[in-house]
Amino acid sequence: MSSSQAPIRVAVLGCGTVGRQVIRLLQESASDLAWRAGAPLELVGVAVKDPAETGLWQELDPAYLTDDATGLARQADIVVELIGGIEPARSAILAAFEAGASVVTANKALLGSHGPELYDAARSAGVEIYFEAAVGGAIPILRPIRESLAGDTITRILGIVNGTTNYVLDRMTTEGLGFAEVLRQAQELGYAEADPTADVEGFDAASKAAILASSAFHTRVPVDAVSRQGISHLTLDDIVAARATGHVVKLLAIAERRGSEGVIVRVHPALVPRKHPLASVRGVFNAIYVEAEAAGELMFYGRGAGGRPTSSAVVGDLVTVARHRLTGGLGPGESVYLGLPVLPAGQAVTRLQIRLLVRDQPGVLAGVSKVFASHAVSIETVRQTAGDGANGVDLATLTVVTHKAPETALGRVVADLSDEATVVAVAGVIRVEGE
Amino acid sequence: MSSSQAPIRVAVLGCGTVGRQVIRLLQESASDLAWRAGAPLELVGVAVKDPAETGLWQELDPAYLTDDATGLARQADIVVELIGGIEPARSAILAAFEAGASVVTANKALLGSHGPELYDAARSAGVEIYFEAAVGGAIPILRPIRESLAGDTITRILGIVNGTTNYVLDRMTTEGLGFAEVLRQAQELGYAEADPTADVEGFDAASKAAILASSAFHTRVPVDAVSRQGISHLTLDDIVAARATGHVVKLLAIAERRGSEGVIVRVHPALVPRKHPLASVRGVFNAIYVEAEAAGELMFYGRGAGGRPTSSAVVGDLVTVARHRLTGGLGPGESVYLGLPVLPAGQAVTRLQIRLLVRDQPGVLAGVSKVFASHAVSIETVRQTAGDGANGVDLATLTVVTHKAPETALGRVVADLSDEATVVAVAGVIRVEGE
Repeated sequence: MSSSQAPIRVAVLGCGTVGRQVIRLLQESASDLAWRAGAPLELVGVAVKDPAETGLWQELDPAYLTDDATGLARQADIVVELIGGIEPARSAILAAFEAGASVVTANKALLGSHGPELYDAARSAGVEIYFEAAVGGAIPILRPIRESLAGDTITRILGIVNGTTNYVLDRMTTEGLGFAEVLRQAQELGYAEADPTADVEGFDAASKAAILASSAFHTRVPVDAVSRQGISHLTLDDIVAARATGHVVKLLAIAERRGSEGVIVRVHPALVPRKHPLASVRGVFNAIYVEAEAAGELMFYGRGAGGRPTSSAVVGDLVTVARHRLTGGLGPGESVYLGLPVLPAGQAVTRLQIRLLVRDQPGVLAGVSKVFASHAVSIETVRQTAGDGANGVDLATLTVVTHKAPETALGRVVADLSDEATVVAVAGVIRVEGE
Repeated sequence: MSSSQAPIRVAVLGCGTVGRQVIRLLQESASDLAWRAGAPLELVGVAVKDPAETGLWQELDPAYLTDDATGLARQADIVVELIGGIEPARSAILAAFEAGASVVTANKALLGSHGPELYDAARSAGVEIYFEAAVGGAIPILRPIRESLAGDTITRILGIVNGTTNYVLDRMTTEGLGFAEVLRQAQELGYAEADPTADVEGFDAASKAAILASSAFHTRVPVDAVSRQGISHLTLDDIVAARATGHVVKLLAIAERRGSEGVIVRVHPALVPRKHPLASVRGVFNAIYVEAEAAGELMFYGRGAGGRPTSSAVVGDLVTVARHRLTGGLGPGESVYLGLPVLPAGQAVTRLQIRLLVRDQPGVLAGVSKVFASHAVSIETVRQTAGDGANGVDLATLTVVTHKAPETALGRVVADLSDEATVVAVAGVIRVEGE
């Protein structure tokens, strides 16, 4: 089969850790890929910023290299975009579509912000854009959502979709180290970027949440509509308090559908009960927990980043797109028929664990309770632990866990608690999810 | 879109717990399914053994019912086969293919034993057979293996693919109950059949192992080639001993590829380390752990049985097959290009935990050690616990965990240990996997 078919011409744009592994797979697994796709996948070129630099990489003949991503994109049947970021990735993808090529990409930032433009352009050109690697690295999650669950109604997704933050939180939990120290170690180990903002402030997770929500809810969810909070404000006290109540802290991407009312998509740290399947996702691993009406609870687990794992998803898409070019037919494109409103995150219903530093004196609990009651937020548990007596004042820590309530009401509770006379400080506020 | 397209005619064969949920989804989600498939999915008939009996089910108009499965199969674009077992399911599927219909089925027993005949017939007829629901119920696992991982090389699969046995083992573990008692309770709760043989003796898991291995290794693996051991011989002592060494007992379906030499597929109970992701799969849940060269470790988790979860997978396939009929193109069919030999399970390399009841006297350990050494099996750990002094003989329990060794050598060790003078009884033998 493989020898009789004309080869499918593949261009790779970008030659970083993922690009190199994609090229390696194309070379080392050429025979397998030809059988699976129905024709050989032939590398026609690799676009890099500076071809002279990449020449250091011995495994690739320099003749393949070019600095003209857009030009190369026009010479292929399938373009693999691994440049990342917005430009020149966006222009190169649009050029590929214009030239009749399909595209495989791992670019979550571009899809989160410019997805609809690209999906429309692909549809107009009658070609495909596949992007399994954009969420969850090696984990098959978008194909299962878009195809396997096409007969079901997805109601909620809770995802650990950023390995850097999961690694940091995991080490804070298991080793009792502070955020800054673990982050520094993660940077040394290559698990965190020199500028860790995209990861630790939740931007990366927000892009992925937008992609997940769009696919799951057949609705366009732009990344700007995703409410976002990172993990840089978390302290070791938060982690320790989580453990005391049987939880672990995870940075979650949460996408919820509220019937036909709309969807809410948010990224923030949350307490997850130890027994929840997401609680045992350790280190740099990712996992996406999906709730659907008929299927019930599902979880997809694996390596969410790294050159080799990500290349698995990229080349899997490449084989699928190649098959479609050979046998006809297109995979399911963007599906937005539901067009549900994206509701403000203030309408989310969640629970809070609030740690308060209070004066250890009679009437404190009554005053605090009144604040909750005034916003119709009911309390599930209260735990008081004796604090230190610094500055000549007897202090105690009050850890309150609420029942479910709207975000806005919870926000007002927290604001009012700060103004409460007996409350010295609101020491920590964290949502509780996954119950 | 949905109103302009001619409907896709769907016939459902079999109307048990899964069939009813499939029909319910077709009715309740009709509009969503039409959008996702590209045309309405119209139920044209339901084949049942005795139409008069099923009339009790109020939600279905009796006019849909027929006892002629094969006749109905010829009148549809897509046939959903949920009869189960070999005949008349096999004949009805072949009739559907002859009439140009594609088939969606959840019938693991039929696929495990007659898969190749059906795949060939579908290919000859230019139609499709999809069967995501045959393994892991609602869990998307076959599509990820066949499509998402098409760029990768799968090396090993460890699956908890039978909910009944996982429920029984889990309750034995958490509640300290014996096999017979838990099985009886499982039968009362509807988690186990009146005749539990197919589940507890591993036949069901073996069919699923054959399907998983065939898909993952691009090789025909008939169910007869799957080595199989069930859980009915396990005692509470086995479960307790597992806990003592930091393990839990799971019935695993294991499919391994040994490079280009061949594949080994087996089903048996095994000790899994508590930290392994499979160890926390509780109750009737299923999970399939996949190792691939580029992706690394992946796990897919969810409900492996039940009407609603299984219907999710069935209708997901239905939407995919409907799309293909409308837009052209076929999904990847059976892939057997590797055609690897299926090696005898005796060639598997595993570890054993062996519990021996021995006389508590000098020289026992030396004698036992000699047996292991004589078959070149090395010992990882030995733990001796004082036993009772029944029958006037001082006894002790010796728990030996081996290093990795070929099954055949391990089998000889166990046989020779039974003959060893100081060994009163080989009280338990169980493999150790997942490390």
